[in-house]
Amino acid sequence: MATLFISPGACSLASHVVLRELALPIQVERVALRTPDSPIRQINPLGRVPALQLDDGTVLTENSAILPYLADQVPDTPLFAPAGSVERAQIQGWLGYLASEVHTAAFRPLNRPERYSADESAHPGIRAQAQVQLLQAFEHIERRLDGRQWLVADRYTLADAYLGVFASWITRIGGPFNELRNVQRLREQWLQRPAVRSALQAEGLL
Amino acid sequence: MATLFISPGACSLASHVVLRELALPIQVERVALRTPDSPIRQINPLGRVPALQLDDGTVLTENSAILPYLADQVPDTPLFAPAGSVERAQIQGWLGYLASEVHTAAFRPLNRPERYSADESAHPGIRAQAQVQLLQAFEHIERRLDGRQWLVADRYTLADAYLGVFASWITRIGGPFNELRNVQRLREQWLQRPAVRSALQAEGLL
Repeated sequence: MATLFISPGACSLASHVVLRELALPIQVERVALRTPDSPIRQINPLGRVPALQLDDGTVLTENSAILPYLADQVPDTPLFAPAGSVERAQIQGWLGYLASEVHTAAFRPLNRPERYSADESAHPGIRAQAQVQLLQAFEHIERRLDGRQWLVADRYTLADAYLGVFASWITRIGGPFNELRNVQRLREQWLQRPAVRSALQAEGLL
Repeated sequence: MATLFISPGACSLASHVVLRELALPIQVERVALRTPDSPIRQINPLGRVPALQLDDGTVLTENSAILPYLADQVPDTPLFAPAGSVERAQIQGWLGYLASEVHTAAFRPLNRPERYSADESAHPGIRAQAQVQLLQAFEHIERRLDGRQWLVADRYTLADAYLGVFASWITRIGGPFNELRNVQRLREQWLQRPAVRSALQAEGLL
């Protein structure tokens, strides 16, 4: 049976939520990260989650690839759109934006400043600037959500499933992030979905 | 007619190369970046390329979304694979890795340290660490290419078209990056493709 490797509260929550939304027969296995002997290193040499191991042993990585792969197992799911359509490209574009601009460009230097300078005295400045970048990235999303319930079209898609994870992360920061009304509204709607609630419960977060 | 907005030598080269490889009827327009009055800001509020404006005015962004969209306009192209296939997810996974780990996590702090700290005295340390991250990201690619000509399957795909751009960028750094034999070999094969040569010529880089 295929296995999705996750770590509670990590960005793998997006793949976990979508797996449950689609009711796919894939088991979920929790792994520790950042420990040298974590079993994830046997699966994904980069030591990261999400990692989706298929029946033949192939391992898929990156939310921006796993989410579309999962949705494509259920061809008419409203979570995604047909290959070649503009809607699909818009959804994929938001997956790319969230992975690159929100997670990698902003949350990573905020949480892992050591990856951006070996000089510890530089870390407070890196974390401060990361918060500036994060707010800018979210202000772009906030503007997109003006007069819209969801990021693409008028339905919940993979893009919103992924955004819900980061919209939850920012609640820990507070301050100006609490003023992002559209983002907070989307997060509340996301939290009401049974698939989201069951994934959060399974990860021990609810 | 649809228009692909690019800036010479930027990461938009990947979309430009693929557009020519597929011989799609899309015009290419050069724009300046990082200038407040650049016309790109009218198209993409983030002021970035690539941006693909469709006939109806819709604008697609992110290489990880534009490349699949372009390939899906030619359903049987060997550059990509059918929706739901493992190969497609692997190609999309490399697009995600290149966008996040190579471009955003490494080239960006190397080239734009001001986005990672407002303290200029921290910039040399940020650039040094970015080079460490970049080398690690490329060593992962180098290992993947052991005994393989291309990143996925045994043919040139979107993943290689995108990798060719970054494999060219590292030649300016030299040092340990010159030791990445598999990556350099892939770049040489990439450079021999007529679509790559015509895109480079059109961008004034050859």
